[in-house]
Amino acid sequence: MRLSKYFLPLLKETPASAEIASHRYMLRAGMIKQHSAGIYSWLPFGYKVMKKIEQIVREEQNRAGCVEMLMPTIQPAELWRESDRYDDYGKEMLRITDRAGRELLYGPTNEEILTDVFRTFVRSYKELPQLLYHIQWKFRDEVRPRFGVMRGREFLMKDAYSFDINMDAAVVSYNKMFIAYLNTFARMGLKAVPMRADTGPIGGDLSHEFLILADTGESEVFCHADLVDMPAPGLDVDFDSDLQSLVDARTALYARTDEMHEQDVFEAEVPRAKRLSARGIEVGHIFCFGDKYSKAMGAKVMGPDGKEHFAQMGSYGVGVSRLVGGIIEASHDDAGIIWPKSVTPFGVGIINLRVGDDDCDRVCEDLYGKLKFAGVDPLYDDKPDRGGVKFSRMDLIGLPYQIVVGPRGIKDGVVEIKDRKSGERQNQSPEAAIAFITAQYADMSL
Amino acid sequence: MRLSKYFLPLLKETPASAEIASHRYMLRAGMIKQHSAGIYSWLPFGYKVMKKIEQIVREEQNRAGCVEMLMPTIQPAELWRESDRYDDYGKEMLRITDRAGRELLYGPTNEEILTDVFRTFVRSYKELPQLLYHIQWKFRDEVRPRFGVMRGREFLMKDAYSFDINMDAAVVSYNKMFIAYLNTFARMGLKAVPMRADTGPIGGDLSHEFLILADTGESEVFCHADLVDMPAPGLDVDFDSDLQSLVDARTALYARTDEMHEQDVFEAEVPRAKRLSARGIEVGHIFCFGDKYSKAMGAKVMGPDGKEHFAQMGSYGVGVSRLVGGIIEASHDDAGIIWPKSVTPFGVGIINLRVGDDDCDRVCEDLYGKLKFAGVDPLYDDKPDRGGVKFSRMDLIGLPYQIVVGPRGIKDGVVEIKDRKSGERQNQSPEAAIAFITAQYADMSL
Repeated sequence: MRLSKYFLPLLKETPASAEIASHRYMLRAGMIKQHSAGIYSWLPFGYKVMKKIEQIVREEQNRAGCVEMLMPTIQPAELWRESDRYDDYGKEMLRITDRAGRELLYGPTNEEILTDVFRTFVRSYKELPQLLYHIQWKFRDEVRPRFGVMRGREFLMKDAYSFDINMDAAVVSYNKMFIAYLNTFARMGLKAVPMRADTGPIGGDLSHEFLILADTGESEVFCHADLVDMPAPGLDVDFDSDLQSLVDARTALYARTDEMHEQDVFEAEVPRAKRLSARGIEVGHIFCFGDKYSKAMGAKVMGPDGKEHFAQMGSYGVGVSRLVGGIIEASHDDAGIIWPKSVTPFGVGIINLRVGDDDCDRVCEDLYGKLKFAGVDPLYDDKPDRGGVKFSRMDLIGLPYQIVVGPRGIKDGVVEIKDRKSGERQNQSPEAAIAFITAQYADMSL
Repeated sequence: MRLSKYFLPLLKETPASAEIASHRYMLRAGMIKQHSAGIYSWLPFGYKVMKKIEQIVREEQNRAGCVEMLMPTIQPAELWRESDRYDDYGKEMLRITDRAGRELLYGPTNEEILTDVFRTFVRSYKELPQLLYHIQWKFRDEVRPRFGVMRGREFLMKDAYSFDINMDAAVVSYNKMFIAYLNTFARMGLKAVPMRADTGPIGGDLSHEFLILADTGESEVFCHADLVDMPAPGLDVDFDSDLQSLVDARTALYARTDEMHEQDVFEAEVPRAKRLSARGIEVGHIFCFGDKYSKAMGAKVMGPDGKEHFAQMGSYGVGVSRLVGGIIEASHDDAGIIWPKSVTPFGVGIINLRVGDDDCDRVCEDLYGKLKFAGVDPLYDDKPDRGGVKFSRMDLIGLPYQIVVGPRGIKDGVVEIKDRKSGERQNQSPEAAIAFITAQYADMSL
């Protein structure tokens, strides 16, 4: 993409309303524009990151055997009366009446509507397990929307739902999502720790939240320090195998959010040097709640015993739009954002220090064409601004690598490669620069 | 995908409410489930088709130089008061009040909100043209939602918006979308004819609707018969070149929807043998409406003359969810759907006629693995049903090709390939079958 043809409206000053780094940088880097409290447009640069995140989430759901579908944003109120949650949600639920006087609502979550799909079509245990997900916009009318996309009202979420014949089978589904989540967050360069968590209005006993540690996190968390650097299971996990031991390895050590925290247990279980208390950002939450919805809504299947059984269910959420902010909280410096390679909106930035100079233009066009062909999706700063503006702009938007092309370097036959994270610089021939950048992305599809 | 692990709930009987082929087949083939009038869940099979269509639309927008972003579904009412359309939309607009008493609405279209983005950030003609699009859910509270996804209330639409310094430049943007639309629909196997159309509540003078001809279409259309088979411009069009002659070639001949039809002009311009009057399904609509919104909302840029100018705008819609139905209307027979290769949810169906038979299982598994590796995304019917059920199921869901594996064929070293559209059958060795199927998709990425 040529910057001159892109819509990237940067702000010079930080809006006073933005209290945390991700909100500040998302506004300054032209990623979002607010239209109403907690309701945003995703401008092209922000949208591209969100799409990358969504795609990683999708790939890991598919790998775990979860099947994608799509439920509507608007739901009939009657389903929520069946589950007895219509009143529970209080004012957070956006309630709507249509022209015919029917009561509708903007879905804050989708247990009811998918249970309705399930009970319509599934009759026998032979059709189980069912593991279905969608990635869809949701609305929660927060009292105080804040921190930009971290606590918005309209937000993008991946939510999956499992249906099994009994609780043992339900835990197998739960474990699949548990492991898939670890891989999902690891692919985004995040260290997410699963913690025992309160189940809130979803219900059930078995539940884990996945949190990334950040000073700006809304939750207080307590955990064994070893959990933070424990590697993810890896993409070669066999999801048809027994995953219990992998889950156990991550749940044996103490890790709880504030609602579930017990200080005496924490101190008894965790040696002093390993006690980590910090703030965390919730990026995923999984629940196993048995027959709470299937019973209320009559979602039964015939079992191998010839009797009817209520489906045992779980639900599994990832905050896709929130992750855009979460990744920035976890990866930025004073100059701006530092995108992990897996979610960066462009693979590399090319800075032309003298647009209009024949040599600079030629070298840049050549780099641009070849990097595009190599599939690393370059962003070419072909605007007629001065160097200082270009450097700080490129640092702000945080692409992992920059190639700086100036007249002096060209005389020596070199361009400068800058690593955004380490700040390291190296001079290379244009050909070597292309090879270097391409190699950085060899292990991932951009 | 193995059918035994997929969620494909087929209906044996056609629901009485479904009046047209696409609605009937989408229900029977387990593509959608209705939750409220005109509000649907997209089950996995339907969702996959919609995603394919969405991706074709996206690729052709990008090729035309349009940049993707995403606007929210919920919009503040105040923007619609500025443009004076808040009352125009009447009861079709879903109006909402949030917990703080703010008036919101579920966007039926996005001129206001993008004009708001534009006026916030763009100051100079040097930043023009701007051509931005998104693919997002919209809501129109139709009096009588019907025909399944063809006239739903919650529907997926691609809408693009252009901003230019003057009307000449605005027509250049309009022409880009005109040509992109022809290519878009052609890639889906559709013959879409651009017709002069009424502009309705969007406004402006210059407007074309793109219609596919089908007996179940809601609009009556009148056109020169030669337009129907006129080939699309092709994907090698240079969108930076002057496209006017390409547009002229398609607008010189008479083609109008009923609101714009003039019988005497039709008869004067079109020789009797070429007069086509038919029914059509609207799949796209483009508008050039000048400064209607920019003036009302104060979206001005500094011109090269040092004066402020209102941006000259256009908007451009494609009905993505509607196209799923439109394609079925255009391509089905008595046995079911016939998917064009470019949008088929799976490239080929493998039918195992004797699940549990060692030879059949082995040949099918081998075909399945190799076709998956070849990237043609096979659907493997590994369910223990009898042949007749499998044949009619596979015909109903309409994958372009089927490979039938039975014990008799295996003895002769062959499997049967069936072309869903022509009904043609051929016996081939499994290896030749793989090569044949792969070759059918060689020119497109599935």
